[in-house]
Amino acid sequence: MKAVGIVTEYNPFHNGHLYHIEQAKKLTGADVVIAVMSGNFVQRGEPAIFDKWTRAQVALQNGVDIVIELPTFFAVQPSHIFTEGAVKLLAAMGVEDIVFGSEHADVDFLTLAKNAPDVQLSKKSDAGNFKDKKQTFASAYAHELEMSTGFKLEDPNDILAFGYARAVSKLGLESQINLRPIQRMSAGYHDKTFTEDQKIASASSIRLALHKGKLEKLADVVPNETKALLSSSANTINFEQPFWQLLKYRLVTDTVGQLGQIYQMAEGLEHRLSAMALGEPGPQSYQSYIKAVKSKRYTFARIQRTLLYTLANIKVDQMQAAMQDAYLRVLGFTPLGQQYLNVTKKHLDLPLISKVDMSLAKSNLRLDYKAGKLWQMLATGDNVPQQDVSRVPILVEKEK
Amino acid sequence: MKAVGIVTEYNPFHNGHLYHIEQAKKLTGADVVIAVMSGNFVQRGEPAIFDKWTRAQVALQNGVDIVIELPTFFAVQPSHIFTEGAVKLLAAMGVEDIVFGSEHADVDFLTLAKNAPDVQLSKKSDAGNFKDKKQTFASAYAHELEMSTGFKLEDPNDILAFGYARAVSKLGLESQINLRPIQRMSAGYHDKTFTEDQKIASASSIRLALHKGKLEKLADVVPNETKALLSSSANTINFEQPFWQLLKYRLVTDTVGQLGQIYQMAEGLEHRLSAMALGEPGPQSYQSYIKAVKSKRYTFARIQRTLLYTLANIKVDQMQAAMQDAYLRVLGFTPLGQQYLNVTKKHLDLPLISKVDMSLAKSNLRLDYKAGKLWQMLATGDNVPQQDVSRVPILVEKEK
Repeated sequence: MKAVGIVTEYNPFHNGHLYHIEQAKKLTGADVVIAVMSGNFVQRGEPAIFDKWTRAQVALQNGVDIVIELPTFFAVQPSHIFTEGAVKLLAAMGVEDIVFGSEHADVDFLTLAKNAPDVQLSKKSDAGNFKDKKQTFASAYAHELEMSTGFKLEDPNDILAFGYARAVSKLGLESQINLRPIQRMSAGYHDKTFTEDQKIASASSIRLALHKGKLEKLADVVPNETKALLSSSANTINFEQPFWQLLKYRLVTDTVGQLGQIYQMAEGLEHRLSAMALGEPGPQSYQSYIKAVKSKRYTFARIQRTLLYTLANIKVDQMQAAMQDAYLRVLGFTPLGQQYLNVTKKHLDLPLISKVDMSLAKSNLRLDYKAGKLWQMLATGDNVPQQDVSRVPILVEKEK
Repeated sequence: MKAVGIVTEYNPFHNGHLYHIEQAKKLTGADVVIAVMSGNFVQRGEPAIFDKWTRAQVALQNGVDIVIELPTFFAVQPSHIFTEGAVKLLAAMGVEDIVFGSEHADVDFLTLAKNAPDVQLSKKSDAGNFKDKKQTFASAYAHELEMSTGFKLEDPNDILAFGYARAVSKLGLESQINLRPIQRMSAGYHDKTFTEDQKIASASSIRLALHKGKLEKLADVVPNETKALLSSSANTINFEQPFWQLLKYRLVTDTVGQLGQIYQMAEGLEHRLSAMALGEPGPQSYQSYIKAVKSKRYTFARIQRTLLYTLANIKVDQMQAAMQDAYLRVLGFTPLGQQYLNVTKKHLDLPLISKVDMSLAKSNLRLDYKAGKLWQMLATGDNVPQQDVSRVPILVEKEK
């Protein structure tokens, strides 16, 4: 059985994702589609609007055969770590291709990655060897890349595509995995509006419409399963107030020394975070707090991730240890996906995890467990289900 | 000018406190009554139902001339530290007498304290040299005391009285300070009911009536200022839900190793606290959580204090350092109190603090500052005022 891999967040699942899955099958002739998906928190450092089980289920109802959770220590990370983690998991699952969107699908990303300047990527500070404090790491790196290769790496899907290519090269996977970019359709990653005749909209524009209560705008751009979920309202569309309440509590009660041990708390940022939280009367919302601490040096997403690490109290050493010890957590499968797992499970390159008990709190899954507990605390609604202990993979019987 | 000292919590101020003040003046002939009062959290590890400024104001309206805040590192402590801290502050303020209630006012507590068995009181674990895990430290100590002196130390005011006496003896204050017990009137410290002809009720029975919404029961047992406050509703009468929410968040996100550094987290208690918080589905309220972690070894108050230290993230070393460095924080005074301060302030034995700026976050007042921020987070109502920065002592012009 031939498998194709895709890297996803499905926050929420929409028509663009359907197109992605169709193209992945069509381009590669694969039997099985394996999606690596962020868990309860997405790459930008925000809680996903539905929990990982709910999102996995919709994916399985819409063409994916196996959903593997991208562990928190890979998912909530700058793009180079996010993409490398995802490639590592897909390689372990035995995929022969990875299909992904790109604003420049004609570019040979693998060659680009091989000619790219090197950076120190795994330091506490991802500032690496870029010392100019007036620009972000990403734009400094893009500038260096353009100098040496002539390619301007600035579009969000290109940045991910470049990450997959660099990971394949770095991990020596060139003979196993083909990288297959597909040209992005009209809806940009960050587009915030969509016209009535558009059948594809970006996930961020969908979340924005949801925020504004304009559900009628979403009817044509998401499959029925997502529609049903959205109309029963998302669990973390209003996460900011509880997030800010808990974060403020931590910033007030932890010492600057403790905050300084948090992952990616580089260049004295902890002093700024603490001082801005303690000021009188102090920021009244999470958004106004982020604005107060933001500087030209850091992207919005970088600040938001650092604040999530702070909220989850993830220290540098914990994160670095966790990243060395990956696993394949199965969130669900179709019968076809189950068949693929039965055939391959004895020679997977990473441990396959399908059920966990309380001992996970002491295992390398503890960050996902913590993330799940945090997600529960931030989510609205009664009886938000716990995310890990004794949960078993979803089996979606009937495929479309 | 002659000053008498009293040690108080005023949670809330009631007729028993009026009687206490009258007796203090009458017994000693003092010109000035100085109250050392717990700040925003009381000895039992709970937030005070009104903030420290509000409670200081009512005290000044009802016969107290100067209110000094008992710092958090003395206030939220077992009785031997609470009493020693209070005596240290009153001695520094130059009082000649300390007047306090006792169930056995005829007992010579100073002689009792001198003949009492010694214990290791300042260890991380207050278990000291008592190894029997089936009883609390307090009852083990009371047993030893009874063996050596014949006196049964079991009533709550006697325990405090014994603490004052031991502090006076330990600090070498016998020639400066006279200890004056007054016989407790009918209302026991922990009494939960009061009859209609009773004009004195305990603070805990008042809080209970308030909890039950039975304000009419309080009309005769508190002065008008407290009545007005109670009818505008207390700020932390319903603190348990927000307290549990923040505490659960910390227990979920901090490692057992981090919890183990918390003050008074003795004998592996951190493992129990963590496991009980993480269990699925886990306790649904603060009360059920305390019940789950409670054992015969610890009193309810001891557990509650440890949980407050956990919530405030107060480590052993921080607490021990803080206790070495006391100060006199003035919350308010009457004109007479102000006159006393003007005369004495140049030769007080501890620094007198009447106004603080943001630098307090780095000073020894940081625990009080943290406590104030926490109290704000737990309090209900909009515009709960911040507790420290730029606040100046209350001047209450008109005495009753």
